[in-house]
Amino acid sequence: MASLLLKRLSLHSLRSSLSGCRHVSKAAPQAQMEWDYDGPCMKTAVPGPRSMERLKQLGEIQNVDAINFFCNYEESRGNYLVDVDGNRMLDVYTQISSIPIGYNHPALHKLMADPNNLSTFVNRPALGILPPGNFADKLAESLLSVAPSGMTRVQTMACGSCSNENAYKAMFIAYRNRERGPGGPTQEDLRSCLINQEPGCPDLSILSFMGGFHGRTMGCLATTHSKAIHKLDIPSLDWPIAPFPRLQYPLEEFTRDNAAEEARCLEEVEDLIMQWRQKGRPVAGIVVEPIQAEGGDNHASADFFKSLRNIARKHGCAFHVDEVQTGGGCTGKFWAHEHWGSDDPADIVSFSKKLLTGGYYHKTDLQADKGYRIFNTWMGDPSKNLFLVEVLNVIRRENLLEEVTRSGKALLQGLYALQEQYPGLLSRARGQGTFCAIDIRDDPTRSKILLKARDKGVLMGGCGERSIRFRPALIFKEYHVALFLNIFNDVLAEFK
Amino acid sequence: MASLLLKRLSLHSLRSSLSGCRHVSKAAPQAQMEWDYDGPCMKTAVPGPRSMERLKQLGEIQNVDAINFFCNYEESRGNYLVDVDGNRMLDVYTQISSIPIGYNHPALHKLMADPNNLSTFVNRPALGILPPGNFADKLAESLLSVAPSGMTRVQTMACGSCSNENAYKAMFIAYRNRERGPGGPTQEDLRSCLINQEPGCPDLSILSFMGGFHGRTMGCLATTHSKAIHKLDIPSLDWPIAPFPRLQYPLEEFTRDNAAEEARCLEEVEDLIMQWRQKGRPVAGIVVEPIQAEGGDNHASADFFKSLRNIARKHGCAFHVDEVQTGGGCTGKFWAHEHWGSDDPADIVSFSKKLLTGGYYHKTDLQADKGYRIFNTWMGDPSKNLFLVEVLNVIRRENLLEEVTRSGKALLQGLYALQEQYPGLLSRARGQGTFCAIDIRDDPTRSKILLKARDKGVLMGGCGERSIRFRPALIFKEYHVALFLNIFNDVLAEFK
Repeated sequence: MASLLLKRLSLHSLRSSLSGCRHVSKAAPQAQMEWDYDGPCMKTAVPGPRSMERLKQLGEIQNVDAINFFCNYEESRGNYLVDVDGNRMLDVYTQISSIPIGYNHPALHKLMADPNNLSTFVNRPALGILPPGNFADKLAESLLSVAPSGMTRVQTMACGSCSNENAYKAMFIAYRNRERGPGGPTQEDLRSCLINQEPGCPDLSILSFMGGFHGRTMGCLATTHSKAIHKLDIPSLDWPIAPFPRLQYPLEEFTRDNAAEEARCLEEVEDLIMQWRQKGRPVAGIVVEPIQAEGGDNHASADFFKSLRNIARKHGCAFHVDEVQTGGGCTGKFWAHEHWGSDDPADIVSFSKKLLTGGYYHKTDLQADKGYRIFNTWMGDPSKNLFLVEVLNVIRRENLLEEVTRSGKALLQGLYALQEQYPGLLSRARGQGTFCAIDIRDDPTRSKILLKARDKGVLMGGCGERSIRFRPALIFKEYHVALFLNIFNDVLAEFK
Repeated sequence: MASLLLKRLSLHSLRSSLSGCRHVSKAAPQAQMEWDYDGPCMKTAVPGPRSMERLKQLGEIQNVDAINFFCNYEESRGNYLVDVDGNRMLDVYTQISSIPIGYNHPALHKLMADPNNLSTFVNRPALGILPPGNFADKLAESLLSVAPSGMTRVQTMACGSCSNENAYKAMFIAYRNRERGPGGPTQEDLRSCLINQEPGCPDLSILSFMGGFHGRTMGCLATTHSKAIHKLDIPSLDWPIAPFPRLQYPLEEFTRDNAAEEARCLEEVEDLIMQWRQKGRPVAGIVVEPIQAEGGDNHASADFFKSLRNIARKHGCAFHVDEVQTGGGCTGKFWAHEHWGSDDPADIVSFSKKLLTGGYYHKTDLQADKGYRIFNTWMGDPSKNLFLVEVLNVIRRENLLEEVTRSGKALLQGLYALQEQYPGLLSRARGQGTFCAIDIRDDPTRSKILLKARDKGVLMGGCGERSIRFRPALIFKEYHVALFLNIFNDVLAEFK
């Protein structure tokens, strides 16, 4: 069946008929990956009539305000997302940055054609009590093969929010264990925690940053400060929120100003840690993204993060780097924190999205001291680990981190050029690898640009107040960059 | 490939060689499901040498205190879990109640052999923005085909905790929208919520019950009060906690005492709602399990739940029934709340485990008014919906709810008989369908019984302080009950 499917895939790429397309980009680059399509192909407005039909149908079941359109995932390939109306778009948003090696990668189909793998899909275990025999091996082949420096331990979880929630729990547990010393919990601890009271449920906090995004369950949400719509009406916790540096781009042109801004934020972090300790609500951990993604692609320097890590250490706070969006290779290194050049970047690194499974790595002293403390029924999904093994194989075999670095440079250079060409419209082009963004003059114009680009066959996403973020898959090559820049240029020309 | 796998499966059941087994139950019932095994078969102590090896290996990566043993899911079939040492156990715990129709059900393998389904596994979408074309149809075929009375809307999520977290958010949002009226949020709401402050992050609460379990992320955990180990060292919220009725069993023999106990708890619920309103922390919702599972299989009457639902309505609190463990047919009805005989059982019903996907049903007024309010990257996983369609087909085709009712009766009768036979050892046998439990005289004895039973080829789980809970799959037939009771009797005889 593998061969049958693979044949189906290559047949598709051979077809790649551009006839009947309403809009076809002028730049029709050669198809270097034979299973990928060779360009966008638009047949209707988006959402087209079939999407509209389905939107109405789904609207009877769910709120559909955020739905863009409905997809034909069977026909999607590589960098191209096909919708139910037959429109084929170059996807530089990739399901909110969660598709690592493009749609329907042959390696993943091949994996599913192996009968030895099927029981992993059919029988989802309770990993915390009854793991499959190959569980440690699969972790070694997948997550541990890309473990951050200094970390040999990893806990899988089902999604990004659960990963961060459990990482926070690990930090609270470690903090209290350290406070308590070898004696273990008191009867009073055990009794009071059952009714949400101190000392069993201690008044501890996590320090986060303005503009940060760490998920939407209540613990995560208390550390998320990107957009009001995420937080409105949900009760929260009085935890410290530090300013995140608001830097000027390109970073290398504004090193002095930027360094001053970063110093100001770091000082504020220390002040907050002190204030919250005085309040009786000590900071057990600091959580930060290497690049604030949802909050508008805000970067900071390696020095900033290394200083922050030192501040955490100095004050006895665990340091948690949230790589849910930045992890998985899109910055040109597997983890964005590798750009800091530190041997000891963090105590905890959480992930999800492109890693296909959620979870977090941690240093040994962040491991809960007993079973059932970090626990739930599924604790991840071994079928996602299987896919991840293959994804990592493809990344290595095809040198995708180098590709990302190359494509990313081309993309950023292109954005710089466009920003010079359209100075009133574009600003603050920035990025690492293909993890790039650019600001649009205002939010309404951004919305129009996103829709126009989609109509011309390019799917992008927004972030922050008026940024567009680029989150292509790792198989986004230089010729895809050229194709994208051509179309983007066409779109921008209409807004001059 | 489907046929190949199906052949493999039936070959296995034909083999079913009992030779070489250290312990084989005396009751060797006929194999009525040809793909199931026909009895336990123990070859080593559990955990055996291969499990011990893997335990050491995994211990280098994770805390392994809660691991029972390592499994061979490829070789597991139907009601039987096979471990890596070749031990085959009758599984009446089923991965913490999360395997609906047994291991390696041929219907699920068949599904995976259909090439049309594979892209659903390979391309996990961001369901909130780019759902697959068949998303609404698959929801209709799966979750909506078993929707609770009065509910036509459903939101999928990745796990049980995320389901409850988002259900709570839906209750908070609906509560504040109602309070605010048609004007929408103020600038002050939008500004303050970003920094975790009122009025944007309002001081609202969820009322929960002592002994309840609703998950382990921070919002869920504030409503979980089953075991200290779940909550110790994690900061929490000052939310009201009502007593859950502590009834005497069998319920029908103690109706008067039980009714008085339930009335006491209901009165306390109303008091708490009033107290928390006075505190300025009004109760936006009440969350309750139809049977408190993790907390010790505590039942309450249909009248209790219907009165509770009325109290919620009277005080403007949403009523959330958490069916994560009780849902999916194990009580003999698809949802445990169906036993209440109410047309309007709840405002929200959450699920996970046997449903294979997390999520919650809700009434129309509990739907968030805007996109991105109930949202995350994945919002479930369509591949789990595919499996669920098949699971529901099997449940219908094989009349599994009737089977569960029949097996459940046999199981409960058997437990009653054993409890009479071992009065000092066993008490409080109780259950609905096969969702049964029995109390053991103390926790150490319970631990010993669980281990002895496992050594004889029966895998069970504990709950509460000294209960054993029975959570077999829906394909657990009367002859499995007989087999189980025989072995359990053998075990208990050693503790007389």
